[in-house]
Amino acid sequence: MSLLEVKSFAVGEWIAPDDKARMIENAVTGAPFGRAGNESLDVQAMLDHARQTGGPALRALTFHDRARMLKALATHLGKHKQALYDLSFATGATQADHTIDIDGGIGTMFVFASKGRREMPDSHVYLDGEVEQLSRTGSFLGQHIATSLQGVAVHINAFNFPVWGMLEKLAPTLLAGVPAIVKPATATCYVTELAVKIMLDSGILPAGALQLVSGGLGDMLDRLTCQDVVSFTGSAQTAFKLRSAPHILRNSIRFVAEQDSLNASILGPDAVPGTPEFDLFIKEVQREMTTKAGQKCTAIRRIIAPQAQVEAVIEALSARLAKTVIGDPQAEGTRMGALVSNSQKRDVLEKAGIIGTEAERVFGDADNFDVQGADPEQGAFLPPMLYHCADPDTAVRIHDTEAFGPVSTIMGYRDLDHAIALVNRGDGSLVASVITHDPEVAREVALGAGAFHGRLYFNSRDSMKESTGHGSPLPHMVHGGPGRAGGGEELGGVRGVMHYMQRTAIQGSPDILTAIGKKWVPGATEKPAPAHPFTRTFHDLEIGETIYSDPRVITVDDIQHFAEFTGDTFYAHMDDAAAKRNPFFPGRVAHGYLLLSFAAGLFVEPNEGPVLANTGLDTLRFMKPVQAGDSIKVRLTVKHKTPRNEEYGEVRWHATLTNQNDELVAEYELLTMNAFAI
Amino acid sequence: MSLLEVKSFAVGEWIAPDDKARMIENAVTGAPFGRAGNESLDVQAMLDHARQTGGPALRALTFHDRARMLKALATHLGKHKQALYDLSFATGATQADHTIDIDGGIGTMFVFASKGRREMPDSHVYLDGEVEQLSRTGSFLGQHIATSLQGVAVHINAFNFPVWGMLEKLAPTLLAGVPAIVKPATATCYVTELAVKIMLDSGILPAGALQLVSGGLGDMLDRLTCQDVVSFTGSAQTAFKLRSAPHILRNSIRFVAEQDSLNASILGPDAVPGTPEFDLFIKEVQREMTTKAGQKCTAIRRIIAPQAQVEAVIEALSARLAKTVIGDPQAEGTRMGALVSNSQKRDVLEKAGIIGTEAERVFGDADNFDVQGADPEQGAFLPPMLYHCADPDTAVRIHDTEAFGPVSTIMGYRDLDHAIALVNRGDGSLVASVITHDPEVAREVALGAGAFHGRLYFNSRDSMKESTGHGSPLPHMVHGGPGRAGGGEELGGVRGVMHYMQRTAIQGSPDILTAIGKKWVPGATEKPAPAHPFTRTFHDLEIGETIYSDPRVITVDDIQHFAEFTGDTFYAHMDDAAAKRNPFFPGRVAHGYLLLSFAAGLFVEPNEGPVLANTGLDTLRFMKPVQAGDSIKVRLTVKHKTPRNEEYGEVRWHATLTNQNDELVAEYELLTMNAFAI
Repeated sequence: MSLLEVKSFAVGEWIAPDDKARMIENAVTGAPFGRAGNESLDVQAMLDHARQTGGPALRALTFHDRARMLKALATHLGKHKQALYDLSFATGATQADHTIDIDGGIGTMFVFASKGRREMPDSHVYLDGEVEQLSRTGSFLGQHIATSLQGVAVHINAFNFPVWGMLEKLAPTLLAGVPAIVKPATATCYVTELAVKIMLDSGILPAGALQLVSGGLGDMLDRLTCQDVVSFTGSAQTAFKLRSAPHILRNSIRFVAEQDSLNASILGPDAVPGTPEFDLFIKEVQREMTTKAGQKCTAIRRIIAPQAQVEAVIEALSARLAKTVIGDPQAEGTRMGALVSNSQKRDVLEKAGIIGTEAERVFGDADNFDVQGADPEQGAFLPPMLYHCADPDTAVRIHDTEAFGPVSTIMGYRDLDHAIALVNRGDGSLVASVITHDPEVAREVALGAGAFHGRLYFNSRDSMKESTGHGSPLPHMVHGGPGRAGGGEELGGVRGVMHYMQRTAIQGSPDILTAIGKKWVPGATEKPAPAHPFTRTFHDLEIGETIYSDPRVITVDDIQHFAEFTGDTFYAHMDDAAAKRNPFFPGRVAHGYLLLSFAAGLFVEPNEGPVLANTGLDTLRFMKPVQAGDSIKVRLTVKHKTPRNEEYGEVRWHATLTNQNDELVAEYELLTMNAFAI
Repeated sequence: MSLLEVKSFAVGEWIAPDDKARMIENAVTGAPFGRAGNESLDVQAMLDHARQTGGPALRALTFHDRARMLKALATHLGKHKQALYDLSFATGATQADHTIDIDGGIGTMFVFASKGRREMPDSHVYLDGEVEQLSRTGSFLGQHIATSLQGVAVHINAFNFPVWGMLEKLAPTLLAGVPAIVKPATATCYVTELAVKIMLDSGILPAGALQLVSGGLGDMLDRLTCQDVVSFTGSAQTAFKLRSAPHILRNSIRFVAEQDSLNASILGPDAVPGTPEFDLFIKEVQREMTTKAGQKCTAIRRIIAPQAQVEAVIEALSARLAKTVIGDPQAEGTRMGALVSNSQKRDVLEKAGIIGTEAERVFGDADNFDVQGADPEQGAFLPPMLYHCADPDTAVRIHDTEAFGPVSTIMGYRDLDHAIALVNRGDGSLVASVITHDPEVAREVALGAGAFHGRLYFNSRDSMKESTGHGSPLPHMVHGGPGRAGGGEELGGVRGVMHYMQRTAIQGSPDILTAIGKKWVPGATEKPAPAHPFTRTFHDLEIGETIYSDPRVITVDDIQHFAEFTGDTFYAHMDDAAAKRNPFFPGRVAHGYLLLSFAAGLFVEPNEGPVLANTGLDTLRFMKPVQAGDSIKVRLTVKHKTPRNEEYGEVRWHATLTNQNDELVAEYELLTMNAFAI
């Protein structure tokens, strides 16, 4: 069988490996499988292409445009996933593993597409947080914004998830408007290459938005600037080497690191044998040990159980692990495939040996296990191996040695404080889990161990049917962790997009803030509406367009009648003497909802038109009581517009109710859905 | 005059300098002034004290407790500020400079105290963002939280603001619940020492919360862990040296750097001579050049003006600079004092010399200027110096050389794109300003230059009365910047607190999320209220406490009557045929505000009691139309409680309206103010 020639994609061209390319092994057979790498790759030209062609093209798109692009890419990848499955078996992964990698990656892209549409504006500036009042009268205000970095994202990925690993970084990067250069780990780069080819062939991406380096990066990192980002997933050693480069440090180049860590799972004190939680724990641990043959940066490396349950856990877990059919991932019934390479297998055995100096092996024998459909001497196979450490307090290596394979160590704890101390001994990890049905146990662990972990996963009988697994990073939640885990963060919805954008504090007048954010800020110019704004289409409405209602006097009859009609006979609306005793009211006052309802009556245009519905209301605050004899009037201003589909979009209006003395009575934001055409 | 012996404060003891202490100079006279440093300081004991005593004490407090502590500290410092003023003259600073440093620092602490109370909960876990829906039925959810780091913050500060520089880092650190070890720059550490002494003497801080190193840190940084933070302000060289330490990198220890940068100010194309903006620009630039003798990390180093206005700017600015009275900061009429030391003066002259290789000096002569009340040969005095660079495109050093004194370079631009390119030539800076009255100019600069700047300051006739100045970092807004500025961020309200906390993604059931966040999550247990919750005091109310109303049928008369009463005769409520043409409605529907008003009628307890007022409403969404014949009922659950003063607090209720088929009709959060006692 001829070797796979894994190409790079640079400046619009596919570049074949040269004669110094690295060899890639088939994980199942141990035979040579492919070659990747080209030393003459022009990395400066790649950077220039990304910066000068890809970046401007992406930045010209709005967040919504980019989100639609992600959705199209994910859809397109979904149509071609069989080819990715077929190729992935050579990495040693089973079909179940492929689902995590390939479907998981595509799903991540869909989530970012959705969040881009729902949580970001249809423009180029993302607003971070609320307007800050920096002055007494409001003529000088603050607003944090985020804009796209003007450089390139260099993604350095690990071998274990050649598709997900790329897409989980690529989706937020593209949504941010930043081009990417992807450098997968060489061992599985052929799967990434195919996924890149599928994406590029779709024609969905602008030129320069995505390039690929199969093999080494050369001196690319020494050519980065403060507008670039390195996002790294892999070993602590490599991360240290890359991030300590003087060029990176001197130029404060963003370096996001996600490193393997000593993730742990705690069996709650309440989760004794016989509870649904005990069974759930055994299932989660077994799954984390064997999925992807334990080659997951989030896999459970340390099992922390109440001292009294350690024996029971070993027994139940061993029984479950014993059912793991190991072998050719394509063979019927195989539950665990091969590690990615024989060198990886040697590394795991070496690390297991270190763990073995402090813990006793209680399940699994690397020298004696069954492999179906493949040659255990040639393929990179290992059985699941469970160690038991009797003295985890004095032990050191079980807390700092990661065997990146199906290897885990169980240890007992005396009480919850001890469990928390043990879980924190990892000195920073990506994830810890607690299987408990007791919310107070969860709160104690969150307070005691939160600062050491990027993610805490709690599971119980209440959530187990829908839970997503200890080891699964989700696009909605941050992925990363302090200390040993690298100190970085990825994903987490819009948080993940921000790694590729610059946050900038903006200070200026309301008009300036309105122009930058495309969101009307109180105090900015109120443009007189050329007609009632309810008669104007979504696109015709301008930010700042305003109408002013006539005043309406509130009578005591109105208040009395509203109370009787609605049933809201709260004493402040009924009884002048009682209302006076209340610290907030000068006497009998109108209902807040009466004011809101009258306000609508004052500004609504009743006839059919582009306003389809009032869909909601935000941040309503009642500032000053209204009494009989007072009058109210409304100012209604177009604050922000967000298209929702091809037919209509959401208009956010800023409304103020003022009284006869122009004092603010209430303030709120009104949401309507407005048609593009009448 | 005897030398000031500047002490450190370690493990509860004041430690005097030893015989290897460094000498400190009086900036005004050049004479020896004090000594600081002790090589036998036990830095490990200091770290242990902070971690074992200060941290646990601070973490036991809630955010509100810590905010009250900050307010008390700021108040106490305010009472002693005269002593700080008196001591500060020796640094070369004027009374106006002291106001920025000392009052500015105290003001920063007040803002954090206020934000801690208003924007953070009265508990130990900060919730970051909204609940994430991770499952179809909602039994498994996500929530990001932040908890206090369990280590210590090491603050390494610059010489120019010995009080503000400390307090702007200390306020967010203490609010986060983290103890600090403060290491001021030696040149002005005696002012910091006094401020620390004032704070410690107040007895407000728990033991171990604040320690001080006057002089060198020894090997403290090599003893940090993933729970510690280094926050550095100073030169790029020192930052590089510290952050490239292998121990820091290997353990992913947080290192926040804020470095001096080549900040610029752009005169807008519209701001021609004769406009208020032109005069404002001259004033801002002059102020930034001379305040603190130009020793501000945010000072304007590059002046970017339309080519046609360069001559006019030089002329007007020179005229204004010529009025700068330089001399003894205590002497009547002095507008600019001395630099901090003669070595700093030599450094500024050296850097000015480098700038002089690419630009012509058009104002100020270091060899010929007046100094009042002091000896210019002995004190560290310099005049303001303005350079003009005729070819800023080919120039290199004017964009990368910072003379940290009253030195600035003016250059011309051809069009706004050119101005943006020039301002970005700083390769990352803390702040850039634009003086313009044109919001479109502001938007173009925000989009083109935002990614290179931590802050963009816009000013014009609209905001100049209340604007805070190009060079003033505000506690509300982030301070820091990419690239040359160090890539760090400080301040920015709660954002600044997060540098001392760990963000953790929490996944679990609604009950678990509720217990951790102390905020009821939809799907969590609804506890039956023992009595109507409106009859229960703030403290009696439990999170999750719920009442369910009876149903009420909506009649066509109700709709018709509400329309007539309020005046809201929107066609969807009046005309069945027209409503049917609307994509959202099945026919004539009830007003949203009618539902809201009836809902209040269904759940309100009318009699006097602990509920004082309905103060507002958040995130109301109408999910399903209600027609005549449908009925609605309300579920009202206590979601969250926040004390507001000594008498009452805000209760946030989660309300759902459902119809006769238990379908969700509307959902919102209701705010009431509830008394602590009836």
